Amino acid sequence: MQTISLDKSFGGTQGVYSHESAVCKSTMTFAVFTPPQAAERPCPVVWYLSGLTCTHANVMEKGEYRRAAAALGLIVVCPDTSPRGEQVPNEPDNWQFGSGAGFYLDATESPYDEHYRMYSYITKELPEVIASHFPADMTRQGVFGHSMGGHGAITIALKHPSVFRSCSAFAPIARPMEAGWSKPAFEKYLGSAAAAWREYDTCALIEDGYRFPELLVDQGTSDTFLEDGLRPSELEKACAEAGIPLKLRMQEGYGHSYYFISTFMEDHLRWHAERLS
Amino acid sequence: MQTISLDKSFGGTQGVYSHESAVCKSTMTFAVFTPPQAAERPCPVVWYLSGLTCTHANVMEKGEYRRAAAALGLIVVCPDTSPRGEQVPNEPDNWQFGSGAGFYLDATESPYDEHYRMYSYITKELPEVIASHFPADMTRQGVFGHSMGGHGAITIALKHPSVFRSCSAFAPIARPMEAGWSKPAFEKYLGSAAAAWREYDTCALIEDGYRFPELLVDQGTSDTFLEDGLRPSELEKACAEAGIPLKLRMQEGYGHSYYFISTFMEDHLRWHAERLS
Repeated sequence: MQTISLDKSFGGTQGVYSHESAVCKSTMTFAVFTPPQAAERPCPVVWYLSGLTCTHANVMEKGEYRRAAAALGLIVVCPDTSPRGEQVPNEPDNWQFGSGAGFYLDATESPYDEHYRMYSYITKELPEVIASHFPADMTRQGVFGHSMGGHGAITIALKHPSVFRSCSAFAPIARPMEAGWSKPAFEKYLGSAAAAWREYDTCALIEDGYRFPELLVDQGTSDTFLEDGLRPSELEKACAEAGIPLKLRMQEGYGHSYYFISTFMEDHLRWHAERLS
Repeated sequence: MQTISLDKSFGGTQGVYSHESAVCKSTMTFAVFTPPQAAERPCPVVWYLSGLTCTHANVMEKGEYRRAAAALGLIVVCPDTSPRGEQVPNEPDNWQFGSGAGFYLDATESPYDEHYRMYSYITKELPEVIASHFPADMTRQGVFGHSMGGHGAITIALKHPSVFRSCSAFAPIARPMEAGWSKPAFEKYLGSAAAAWREYDTCALIEDGYRFPELLVDQGTSDTFLEDGLRPSELEKACAEAGIPLKLRMQEGYGHSYYFISTFMEDHLRWHAERLS
């Protein structure tokens, strides 16, 4: 692991790091905020998964998580959204596929299967890096995210309810295996058999029996992606049918950007802290 | 005035606007956060002046001022740091002069005097735009800023103590008319007669009799510019000799970036709110 930068902030340390990922066969960059409490004891870890087009830096610069994380004693890990580099197959003109659009899945189709393994990266490889380099209490982990990353957070929580004790999302996408804008990505990563796509679709996972104790979701009513890609009613319906308590808050007038996310960041970190304490 | 974007955030509105500045002969962009209280009554205005290389966007994206400004009912105005455009003379390879480096002064030397008039822009032209387009109580204004903009805030407050009721700064530069890195800019903007430079140098203004009721300054001890450009002891000495109460807080381990600024942003906004209420 290489340290790219360290900055004191809110009494803690905002670091940016990189490492050679064996899983993604790519140099991966990630950000970790270590709160002041970590100088004295291991702290719970909250994973923030970013949305399409983002790197680790978007939430680090605009998410406004450090004040609350420092107050609550939470380590916040912000990974990148995909492998990157000249060796990684990509479609530079397509912002919904490839670089910045890893969908937190393990691709099975060539040539993407060699690098696009964000699911294993987030659930296996990066946690080992965090556990060995930071004062992290890995028995207390939460996961949240935004848009594609909000969806990724819920899929990962559903599949690892014994690892993650808390989960929330800002404006998560719903049913990406069915939406016109995301279906082509699923096809390229996972092949044409839709049965395999269900592993990476929140509503399908819930329909297939995966469960999580409770979920918090905030969604802006002025989000331009609301009807096309986000459709919170889909998640609401799936959770209701499965008996998963979903606290879905429609936030009047808010959009899809970090102006929305930062507004409710403290609420989400408190949600996680209450369940990780 | 043109509206470039409006985003709901922390119950208020973060807007980005542009207008044709007659003073700077340039299209100028600026950001205004309007807190929720402005829907019911005019609100005090706090001006944030940014540092070298910045536009209006740096503090808007990384400054984390909206939460506290919304809680305190403050309008926050974030201007650009210089005129910009093809018609504006510039030195693209020199980050300490020209675009992004207006030093909040009115240039008197050709060819810079036609556009580089940030002092008049900030103290006269932009306040008129704010007064006529926003629910602003212009009888209650404060000014603060960072680095070159922290220095600009103090010079402007010293020269307009009846307009600004509060002033603070993050890591302001000191004695730019004497420092090796800034003296060339003063010479290009203001000519070779150093007497004219005193109008735009905090310590010189204080020595020349300008006063302000009290100042708050935060300075990181790990700031890489500490000894070269910032030298808070110079401002401390000038204030002590003039009897200006200066609350100078040396913040252990903090740098010069927005990781530092955001940490103490709430303290500064509270400082202003207390004096503007």
